[in-house]
Amino acid sequence: VAESRVPKLLLSQSARPASFGIQAMNETGHLIDTRIAGEHPLSVYLDKRELITLMTLGSAPECLVLGYLLNQGFISQPSELAQIHVDWDTEAAAVTSQQLSASGQSIWDEALGQAIVEKMAHKTVTTGCGQGSVYGSQMDQLAQIHLPARTLAVSVLQHLLAQVRAHESIYKEAGAVHGCALANAQGHILCFIEDVGRHNAADAIRGWMALNPALANQQESLMFYTTGRLTSEMVIKCAQMGIGILLSRSGLTQMGYSLARKLNMLMLGRCQGKHFLAYHGHERVLLND
Amino acid sequence: VAESRVPKLLLSQSARPASFGIQAMNETGHLIDTRIAGEHPLSVYLDKRELITLMTLGSAPECLVLGYLLNQGFISQPSELAQIHVDWDTEAAAVTSQQLSASGQSIWDEALGQAIVEKMAHKTVTTGCGQGSVYGSQMDQLAQIHLPARTLAVSVLQHLLAQVRAHESIYKEAGAVHGCALANAQGHILCFIEDVGRHNAADAIRGWMALNPALANQQESLMFYTTGRLTSEMVIKCAQMGIGILLSRSGLTQMGYSLARKLNMLMLGRCQGKHFLAYHGHERVLLND
Repeated sequence: VAESRVPKLLLSQSARPASFGIQAMNETGHLIDTRIAGEHPLSVYLDKRELITLMTLGSAPECLVLGYLLNQGFISQPSELAQIHVDWDTEAAAVTSQQLSASGQSIWDEALGQAIVEKMAHKTVTTGCGQGSVYGSQMDQLAQIHLPARTLAVSVLQHLLAQVRAHESIYKEAGAVHGCALANAQGHILCFIEDVGRHNAADAIRGWMALNPALANQQESLMFYTTGRLTSEMVIKCAQMGIGILLSRSGLTQMGYSLARKLNMLMLGRCQGKHFLAYHGHERVLLND
Repeated sequence: VAESRVPKLLLSQSARPASFGIQAMNETGHLIDTRIAGEHPLSVYLDKRELITLMTLGSAPECLVLGYLLNQGFISQPSELAQIHVDWDTEAAAVTSQQLSASGQSIWDEALGQAIVEKMAHKTVTTGCGQGSVYGSQMDQLAQIHLPARTLAVSVLQHLLAQVRAHESIYKEAGAVHGCALANAQGHILCFIEDVGRHNAADAIRGWMALNPALANQQESLMFYTTGRLTSEMVIKCAQMGIGILLSRSGLTQMGYSLARKLNMLMLGRCQGKHFLAYHGHERVLLND
């Protein structure tokens, strides 16, 4: 009964082809066929107001847009939206708020407009990103996040890594993309998304999670995996999802490390094959199980 | 005589330590010492007006700030500036224009303020970047760039790659950084800069080049190397420097490929050891010399 009161969010289904073939000459002088990752501009409009243009592989554009709006704090839950419509002919994602849909009044008429202006005024360009900016206010919000002190069995980690190897289709085919995954407590991958920008991939995971309300109360048993570096933004995005375990194939930066310590996040890098380095929370890694 | 009329640009010398030691537990349960790349916020002020906060390794902050201002179109040449002063205690780079220095009138009083507002209105968040945004007007400017049709001998490429291996100090030590290099026609590296954001590294190269006026008329013989992917921004930044050869250890994205074609750039990826793939301009790669 409660669910029937939640207005339905209408989503287009506009995934794009993920890679394209080109010819390149190798060191022997031969022309070979090689694949490159697709990369498309997607301008996001919230109640007809243009927010930003994202460059994306386009494999999960509706999840990307939803996750972007959540991670940047434009909305706090998907039920605030009535529709996300992605149209590649116009390279646009038209997002309509419930408020506009129900009353004809844009979400922008409220305090949001002012809040966004203030956010933009505290723009920080971050490190190795696909999105490039977090806003001052997000850093403040982090102080209010309390992550559960999670444990991780190495056998679970290895189960997850084996699935990542099976999932990475575009990376294997074309390279130049990053992947992010959401996994459950057993290390089973629930969702795997690749994108040319790894923060796009992280945002799309957030969007996918938000569209699966059954997961809403299970953050305490979820894990987040990324092929990319553990920069501050990646730690922030993981924390915003309420997830206490962050895993990466790559290394970390100083700010990522510093934030993981503050948040008491279990953070492992260099996860490849049987190898890993537990950068923070190593006492909660269960070697024998 | 002409040179003495050029006002001197005063620069601080505020490079930071590049890496820090932490302890991490590996898969055998042993705590090992490992290094992580430094990552520091640096807020850029132009004539006392805050522009942006960059996250940087801090190895060449003055070059980074100068290159950022040039690549984003805030200034068109270093002679417009009187001073760049980087102070890590306040995490600030104070940039003073010649105009403010000479007449007390901020560079912002002119049309620049309006131009910047217009730029910001056309913000595009780009792909896999350290900086995250190019502005609409930059894409327009590209149409006016005509790059020379360069040739490249494989022996020169291999000479360059051998030096890259010798230069990559932070990457070897701590990982999680990208390097960019500027090389001459013989493949000799003139400048190699690493940063946590690869677009910071590219910007710092631009800044270093601008501080070496002897190079100003030699773009036609220079080459640009990056460890990162060949995304649209990397192609744009290379083109803005007037350099017609772009080399990468990594692959490319569709927009990077598309721009290289438009600009007739000689673009090679997957440059490692003896291997490479000539993605565009392969007929200008000289295999035997």
